[in-house]
Amino acid sequence: MNTAASRPPLALFRPPSIEQIKVGGFFGPRIDTIATVTAHTLLDRCIEAGMLDQVDPDRPNPGLRIPYQTGNDQVTTQMFWDSDFGKSIEAAAYALYRKPDPVLEARVDEIVDAYGRLQAEDGYLNSWYLRMEPEKRWTNLRDCHELYDAGHLIEGAVAYFHATGKRKFMLILARYADHIASVFGSGDGQRRGYCGHPEIELALVRLARATGERRYLDLARFFIDERGQSPHYFAGEMRARGETMADYHFATYEYNQSHVPVREQRTVVGHAVRAAYLYSGMADIATEYGDTTLRPALDALWTHLTERNLYVTGGFGPSADNEGLTFDYDLPNATAYQETCASVALVFWANRMLGMGAVGRYADIMEQALYNGALVGLSLDGTRFFYDNPLESRGQHHRWIWHRCPCCPPNIARLVASVGTYMYGVADDVIAVHLYCESEATLAVGAVPVTLTQATRYPVDGRIEIAVDPSTPAAFTLALRIPGWARSATLSINGADVSLQSLVTDGYARVNRTWAPGDRLALTLDMPVETIHASPKVGADQGRVSLMRGPLVYCLEEVDNGAALNSLVLPAGGAFVCEPVDGLDGAVAIAADGLRETPAAPRALYINQAPARVPARIKAVPYYAWDNRAGGEMLVWVRQEGTR
Amino acid sequence: MNTAASRPPLALFRPPSIEQIKVGGFFGPRIDTIATVTAHTLLDRCIEAGMLDQVDPDRPNPGLRIPYQTGNDQVTTQMFWDSDFGKSIEAAAYALYRKPDPVLEARVDEIVDAYGRLQAEDGYLNSWYLRMEPEKRWTNLRDCHELYDAGHLIEGAVAYFHATGKRKFMLILARYADHIASVFGSGDGQRRGYCGHPEIELALVRLARATGERRYLDLARFFIDERGQSPHYFAGEMRARGETMADYHFATYEYNQSHVPVREQRTVVGHAVRAAYLYSGMADIATEYGDTTLRPALDALWTHLTERNLYVTGGFGPSADNEGLTFDYDLPNATAYQETCASVALVFWANRMLGMGAVGRYADIMEQALYNGALVGLSLDGTRFFYDNPLESRGQHHRWIWHRCPCCPPNIARLVASVGTYMYGVADDVIAVHLYCESEATLAVGAVPVTLTQATRYPVDGRIEIAVDPSTPAAFTLALRIPGWARSATLSINGADVSLQSLVTDGYARVNRTWAPGDRLALTLDMPVETIHASPKVGADQGRVSLMRGPLVYCLEEVDNGAALNSLVLPAGGAFVCEPVDGLDGAVAIAADGLRETPAAPRALYINQAPARVPARIKAVPYYAWDNRAGGEMLVWVRQEGTR
Repeated sequence: MNTAASRPPLALFRPPSIEQIKVGGFFGPRIDTIATVTAHTLLDRCIEAGMLDQVDPDRPNPGLRIPYQTGNDQVTTQMFWDSDFGKSIEAAAYALYRKPDPVLEARVDEIVDAYGRLQAEDGYLNSWYLRMEPEKRWTNLRDCHELYDAGHLIEGAVAYFHATGKRKFMLILARYADHIASVFGSGDGQRRGYCGHPEIELALVRLARATGERRYLDLARFFIDERGQSPHYFAGEMRARGETMADYHFATYEYNQSHVPVREQRTVVGHAVRAAYLYSGMADIATEYGDTTLRPALDALWTHLTERNLYVTGGFGPSADNEGLTFDYDLPNATAYQETCASVALVFWANRMLGMGAVGRYADIMEQALYNGALVGLSLDGTRFFYDNPLESRGQHHRWIWHRCPCCPPNIARLVASVGTYMYGVADDVIAVHLYCESEATLAVGAVPVTLTQATRYPVDGRIEIAVDPSTPAAFTLALRIPGWARSATLSINGADVSLQSLVTDGYARVNRTWAPGDRLALTLDMPVETIHASPKVGADQGRVSLMRGPLVYCLEEVDNGAALNSLVLPAGGAFVCEPVDGLDGAVAIAADGLRETPAAPRALYINQAPARVPARIKAVPYYAWDNRAGGEMLVWVRQEGTR
Repeated sequence: MNTAASRPPLALFRPPSIEQIKVGGFFGPRIDTIATVTAHTLLDRCIEAGMLDQVDPDRPNPGLRIPYQTGNDQVTTQMFWDSDFGKSIEAAAYALYRKPDPVLEARVDEIVDAYGRLQAEDGYLNSWYLRMEPEKRWTNLRDCHELYDAGHLIEGAVAYFHATGKRKFMLILARYADHIASVFGSGDGQRRGYCGHPEIELALVRLARATGERRYLDLARFFIDERGQSPHYFAGEMRARGETMADYHFATYEYNQSHVPVREQRTVVGHAVRAAYLYSGMADIATEYGDTTLRPALDALWTHLTERNLYVTGGFGPSADNEGLTFDYDLPNATAYQETCASVALVFWANRMLGMGAVGRYADIMEQALYNGALVGLSLDGTRFFYDNPLESRGQHHRWIWHRCPCCPPNIARLVASVGTYMYGVADDVIAVHLYCESEATLAVGAVPVTLTQATRYPVDGRIEIAVDPSTPAAFTLALRIPGWARSATLSINGADVSLQSLVTDGYARVNRTWAPGDRLALTLDMPVETIHASPKVGADQGRVSLMRGPLVYCLEEVDNGAALNSLVLPAGGAFVCEPVDGLDGAVAIAADGLRETPAAPRALYINQAPARVPARIKAVPYYAWDNRAGGEMLVWVRQEGTR
């Protein structure tokens, strides 16, 4: 298994492996918490839910624990349990990098062993079908998440192999992948199907990279290429089950992005997480095969999402009904679904777009989704999780201990625990720095090992010092991201200021020189508090601003501002100050002088008198950190009056 | 059948019958349209839907035409068809008062004849059960609307009797009511049940008033008294069906207001229409029996609704999920469900609260619900109908030709066609004028006939001239409503100004004198444009005002203001002018100078630059009239900046 040997020639930028990056600074303590708390919590709750009972053939069958979903009596969330286990194992694997933990490792080994005992003779491995409905395997790819489950198990197995060197789980899953490759394909007697919930595509790319086996890439490409082709696979499958479209709860194949072949897709539709997982797989295939025919779709989808359907917090999918998209500019705040997994998936997609080149628009959105819509999903103590993420709360929205569809908890945990791998992209003669965070990276350009050490308090401030230490002098390009939010930036190399203007293209300062041990960079990003206005097409946000500083979106919480947050008004052009805030692990608050409205008659629901206004100090905290101190109201888009 | 002879002593104010009021002015043309267009349209669409096929035993059974509702495989909207027919017949009856129409009358007679043939030997009469599931009658009162259907048929039959003098339909329904009285009651072998959807209670009161038969009142009281008692009737019924609460889609008896006995209820909960129909029945029973034990509940429910849960348009029930209430101050605009039927039902409830005395707070809300949340349900041409009523639309919300649950079309039609009966309340020595509209009323105080003639352009302006013409001089009180929205009011009697201050109590100017033929009153209500502010607890409305003039709530439409209505800003303290508007049947528009924001970068979804502002004329039209000219955006709560 040699990754380098099998690298296809057209792949541009690869993310580093987790063992290559030691993360401190902002994310360090979060990863420590995941290693010591969350990784165990996830396994605890999976097992309490009955997942190991379902997986382990030596245990009594748990039977149907979670009632079938309303409106679709064929699908229970138990069918997704393998995916939850897969993601939890992946998070545990990253935790084991952070901190050896024999207890945690033994717990994972127990689950791996159970999967080993469960696996069928022919390699098939889905716990729901093997134990509940063995005769029904591969009969409902549209709804039942069989290949999705396989994908997450594969990702968990690859991560666990990297983390521990133990090959057992990856071999189990490789055997399952080989079985899948025997069932699905364009050959005689094979099924031309694909999963209703994309995920296996990107997982197979990871498996190919880990094993060096191109056949897994080919299978991923098959799933991408087949999606949405005519005759429609799900239609045939549906007829075989004796069903019609009237029986299909979601009514349209837009829900799972199989309405047209992927290369014809131009607008982001349907279930948000499915969409971004699919586009991630498409980007991987475009990168690995140098397949330029996927690029027009990917570019159009990216533009459609980011210019019309993205929350300022880097999440998307406003509707709970389809956990996804509705219509352009439909971005309500109080009812924003904006599933944590959708922001996580957007980080994946953006990161994979960066595989085709260091371009700021992808990295900017990756960072925005990471620090806001994704990170908010995990409590600071690592024990509680948001599933849906409104941008305004009356006080009734809190993180869950668990969810009957627990996709988000292990998803945000595995993302944060592996955040180092999103910081860099490495091509043959380029190292791209996508994200800034106190860290030490051990990379290689060509055959030359390069250590990059970031010293920074980012995102508390915008000063980043980078030590570039190749093992020997080497010529390569260091591409430093200049975030779109930065009002200005300065760069010095070994103490000498350099002009960024000539260096920056596509959002990256590309410094091409012969780097020598001891080279030192200092990058300073101007990080003022920004008041962000939304397009007039987003009705709910008009007359309001969101506060951002660097990559962080801020929000008001009742604990800092009292109740009735919509009674507060910011003056246009007001001055903001940054100040410390207790209880949020070193986060910086933003404060400003504003006004508070008080009603003319407290009990009146409606009255023809304007409220009085009194001065009020308004204080905002990072959105990711809300609901960590006290329950109460929360508001991202704050009223602002006047013009500057 | 003599209503007067059976009037219980404690009933205070009775509404007049429809034949007592000739309506012109604002409502006259609307009623004409219903008489000439809507009454036929309703029957057309009911019959096209298959309703007569279901009712007429001589026709082939239509079978299941409308799939069972998602989440409750026991209930199809076809089970409600009798109610739609009942309300459509009621609307047709009022239409026949307005304008004799032998074709319309013959169409109703055909339906009545079919019901006559359908009725079972024992008097039972529900078309779904008799033709589809005859063995299942009375097995699911919670969900299947059997008594609700009976109620609407009774109301239709009473109206048709009054309109035509034909007794057949009322006798059919009286026989059915007698059958119901034999099945339900506290006697041995009787069922202590009541309907999951209240309605029959108020219908039985109407039947009692029309027939003079107190036993129908008693049956109504039985249903009111039994509701929510322990052991819970729906629980026993559920067990008999072999179901558990887990099978109940709505999960709580709050949904149908049977969670506690009615006298213990203090907060408005559950399905909005059910709630207001129930409270209407409670108010009727309180009035008819002088039952003061119902009053604390009615008062608390009224306060809870009007101080915490009412839209400014006089509708309620924000949520589509339960078609009803959620939590206090949850009044979102774009997603407001605010079913037309809920506003209609609130008119019913308010009107019945006025049965216990002329009190302005009830009449004010009755008027607000009538002119706004209810009236908006019917297009100006009488052919199209709103079911749900958002207070903000991106342009995708339009009136329906029909709805698979067509409860609203005949409901708003029967209300408007009978609006004259809501204008007055008559007690032994008091005539209360609740609503102002060009009209002629033939009433009686004691034995003395009194003609009241209103000459007014109301609500175009606030000048009302009333001719009081008793057949002979008579001493009684004329109680003239002084609306809560009136900034000031003046009254003259026979040309002499009188001081209102000493006359007004509880929102009515009570003029007690000996009235003689030729007496003339002139009431002038100051009707400026008001900017209405919502409680700070209604987050979505902060920084915004709704425009009202008299009873009318106004809104902005794209056709008058261009797109992106949330880009428009009203200055505080700005001047409004009233002006004519084309295409809205004489409605008055409101215009003001304001500002329009234009974005710094048109394609940017988010940007750190405030929009520019340019002067813009802002024009508003009555909410009831929106979506009658061109499709497009609509907005009730308009941004306003600054303080006065």
